[in-house]
Amino acid sequence: MKALAAFAFAAATLAVAAPASAQFAKAEDAIKYRQSALFVMGQHFGRIGAMANGRVPFDAKAAQDNADVVAQMAKLPWAAFGPGTDKGAPTKALPEIWTEQAKYKEHSDKLEAESVKLAAAAKTGNLDNLKAAFGAAAGTCKACHDSYRAK
Amino acid sequence: MKALAAFAFAAATLAVAAPASAQFAKAEDAIKYRQSALFVMGQHFGRIGAMANGRVPFDAKAAQDNADVVAQMAKLPWAAFGPGTDKGAPTKALPEIWTEQAKYKEHSDKLEAESVKLAAAAKTGNLDNLKAAFGAAAGTCKACHDSYRAK
Repeated sequence: MKALAAFAFAAATLAVAAPASAQFAKAEDAIKYRQSALFVMGQHFGRIGAMANGRVPFDAKAAQDNADVVAQMAKLPWAAFGPGTDKGAPTKALPEIWTEQAKYKEHSDKLEAESVKLAAAAKTGNLDNLKAAFGAAAGTCKACHDSYRAK
Repeated sequence: MKALAAFAFAAATLAVAAPASAQFAKAEDAIKYRQSALFVMGQHFGRIGAMANGRVPFDAKAAQDNADVVAQMAKLPWAAFGPGTDKGAPTKALPEIWTEQAKYKEHSDKLEAESVKLAAAAKTGNLDNLKAAFGAAAGTCKACHDSYRAK
């Protein structure tokens, strides 16, 4: 309960104090949050990739479950790139995220859209559909990383 | 996700060569995954707590959005507590997780069930419902942490 109270207290302090990102107690939390959400998404995305690339046998049910998680997770990271979260913990996020916000948002919107298409493709149970949607989604990851993530 | 968890367990049991968890490349990944999923869940849960405890004004829409994320995230961490993932990266997970698997699963099942109830309560738009469901869900966090997480 102490940990929970601490969570709640941190959130309350924030809501009053911080323009940085009303949702996070400190920049460090925002950075950890977005890295966490992207890591979870990446794990599930990777499992679909293993099927799309023939490294593991195609399992339609597993593809669908993983794609559903990817589509859910794809909504989360972006709120944690608010003003003031460019530093505070180790991060590969490049400053351009904050100087080119509209362009950055185009990238994140595209990933969200492609992740929804990926989930729809997975629901068809057809491996070729999955491969095509996986390729398109992977392209949005790469495009954003190329521009906004340090090597 | 239950299917995935079952798949992981079966695969780990059968494939002697890859005992850690068929879903994760290495134990380190499984540990990072479950910590990530729990951190993301904790952030959203904390926002509901702030409302339930009166530290921030009740916002029915925000409560519902956060509770939906909590319910989604609550499905994820458990598959990453497979055999062989007790070490490989810094972790507070206690050995009893693997020696008392049935009991541990009761805890994680309970959190999943309470998170579904929390999302349903949030949908009513009634703060008292939210408070009650938050308290019940928080109790399942605490019960599991008390038994299975190092101080």
